[in-house]
Amino acid sequence: MTDSRFKGVLVPALTPFTPALDPDRDAWLAHCRWLLAEGADGLAIFGTTSEANSLGIEERIELLDFLVDAGIDPARLMPGTGTCALADTVKLTAHAARRGAGGVLLLPPFYYKAVNDDGLFAAVAEVIERVGDAALRVYLYHIPPVAVVGYPVALVERLVTAYPETVVGIKDSSGDWSNTRAILDAVPQIAVFPGSEIFLLDGLRAGGAGCITASGNVNPAGIRAVYENWRGPNAERLQARITEIRKVIQAFPAIPALKAITAAFTGSRDWKITRPPLEALSEAEARRLLDALSAIGFSMADNRACHAA
Amino acid sequence: MTDSRFKGVLVPALTPFTPALDPDRDAWLAHCRWLLAEGADGLAIFGTTSEANSLGIEERIELLDFLVDAGIDPARLMPGTGTCALADTVKLTAHAARRGAGGVLLLPPFYYKAVNDDGLFAAVAEVIERVGDAALRVYLYHIPPVAVVGYPVALVERLVTAYPETVVGIKDSSGDWSNTRAILDAVPQIAVFPGSEIFLLDGLRAGGAGCITASGNVNPAGIRAVYENWRGPNAERLQARITEIRKVIQAFPAIPALKAITAAFTGSRDWKITRPPLEALSEAEARRLLDALSAIGFSMADNRACHAA
Repeated sequence: MTDSRFKGVLVPALTPFTPALDPDRDAWLAHCRWLLAEGADGLAIFGTTSEANSLGIEERIELLDFLVDAGIDPARLMPGTGTCALADTVKLTAHAARRGAGGVLLLPPFYYKAVNDDGLFAAVAEVIERVGDAALRVYLYHIPPVAVVGYPVALVERLVTAYPETVVGIKDSSGDWSNTRAILDAVPQIAVFPGSEIFLLDGLRAGGAGCITASGNVNPAGIRAVYENWRGPNAERLQARITEIRKVIQAFPAIPALKAITAAFTGSRDWKITRPPLEALSEAEARRLLDALSAIGFSMADNRACHAA
Repeated sequence: MTDSRFKGVLVPALTPFTPALDPDRDAWLAHCRWLLAEGADGLAIFGTTSEANSLGIEERIELLDFLVDAGIDPARLMPGTGTCALADTVKLTAHAARRGAGGVLLLPPFYYKAVNDDGLFAAVAEVIERVGDAALRVYLYHIPPVAVVGYPVALVERLVTAYPETVVGIKDSSGDWSNTRAILDAVPQIAVFPGSEIFLLDGLRAGGAGCITASGNVNPAGIRAVYENWRGPNAERLQARITEIRKVIQAFPAIPALKAITAAFTGSRDWKITRPPLEALSEAEARRLLDALSAIGFSMADNRACHAA
């Protein structure tokens, strides 16, 4: 792992599946390359949006190897490595560090509920100690709407204090700007990424590092434009546009919606496939989504051209 | 796997850890043998109480192999095999079937929230189809207070209808008797196990199969006595006693409490160790728990003698 921290727009890359529900490696590689070409600063592969929690431990290891062996710069990768189980989290995290990943995005152990900060601190500390790699860079992944278990601000502060060289950032997918704000106030020295581009401009103005956002899978260039121009005269207008697009998408189940859009952009129907327990959008839902995006002038033609390139 | 369904008292066996946080195999084997000797009808190893969700996939495979190789009858085992990820659930379930487990206890994929019955049905169906073992017997594991995602009654009915030879039971750890009652009414042909002995007698009278209960780790003989005598004149009295003991225990965090009691019973302090994110009871808490059990005359001396045997 390198010492340079992530900043900018990171995308939790979608994972395409074949009709047999196996990861479609070639389509995945093409998508990752397209995202980077469109300006994504990094790929948070194996995030929630990636359906990583529906991927087996060995599948994740093999997929990371595949991507790095295919020539994707590992310094641009922030794989999700947090699982319920200490042993599996250590295995995935150590492997990511060994392959040179720029960082890992670490869910807390999320099966047991009502655990307290001491237990969660011990869980993260144990992972860092067992991996024992000075190059490891951990970005905490706070997503209570899905994982239920999260990282309270006081715990974030405690982890950063205990491991200042290792715990260098956080993705805040609470959807609660006041929480992001509280993190920025408590630990301004780490890279704070809101989990939605809706908070991108506000985050940057408050000292945030960018965003890590699901809809970056379909609108990377638009979101990147806000990051590039956030101090400029067009910042508000650019932000309003990406917020408008995001709001159309998030009226639908997020992952199936992003896959339906990607299927339309790439012309590959298989992109709609999700692994159970998630379900693909119905034809009617997908049509409604695409019509809603067309209605606000979101350009698929441009994106399709880029994706094929 | 054999064709005989589980019934009676099953125990989600605790998993002891060494100070280095590795599973302590010898202590585990001794505990499993003691539970069976005390009358447990089966061992639901790798349950929530077993901290199975803190064990890695490979750890679970190796531990099951160890137990069966050590001579524990696999027909008495109902290992938990449900994980978030399709690939891992298939791997664990196929391995359990291959080793002759009497059944598996299957959590639904529990990371993604707000999934609907169609998606959960597809997830379970996919596991059954991929394992493709006619001897597989699935017991659904409904524990919404922890896993959040559960099996609604309509989904249970649908799975039993689709796979009548395979989906043969359920553990209902909702803690809601009306839900257990609704399952018994909807699918009387399957083995319904409340997840607490508090509902044992009510469950048996309503057609239930017994119970699968955490506190069976420390009170297996007492709970078994209710099962053996439920039609007899002492049933209510015996039930009241096990309920009394359970209520003392469940005033504390369940898993650390059961480990503290087992540490006291066996005289082995290491039994108190939990894996993060769980934390052992403090000395003061453990003392308070043990005093409360003494106050109701719960006999540690008897249990200690049995455990050492």
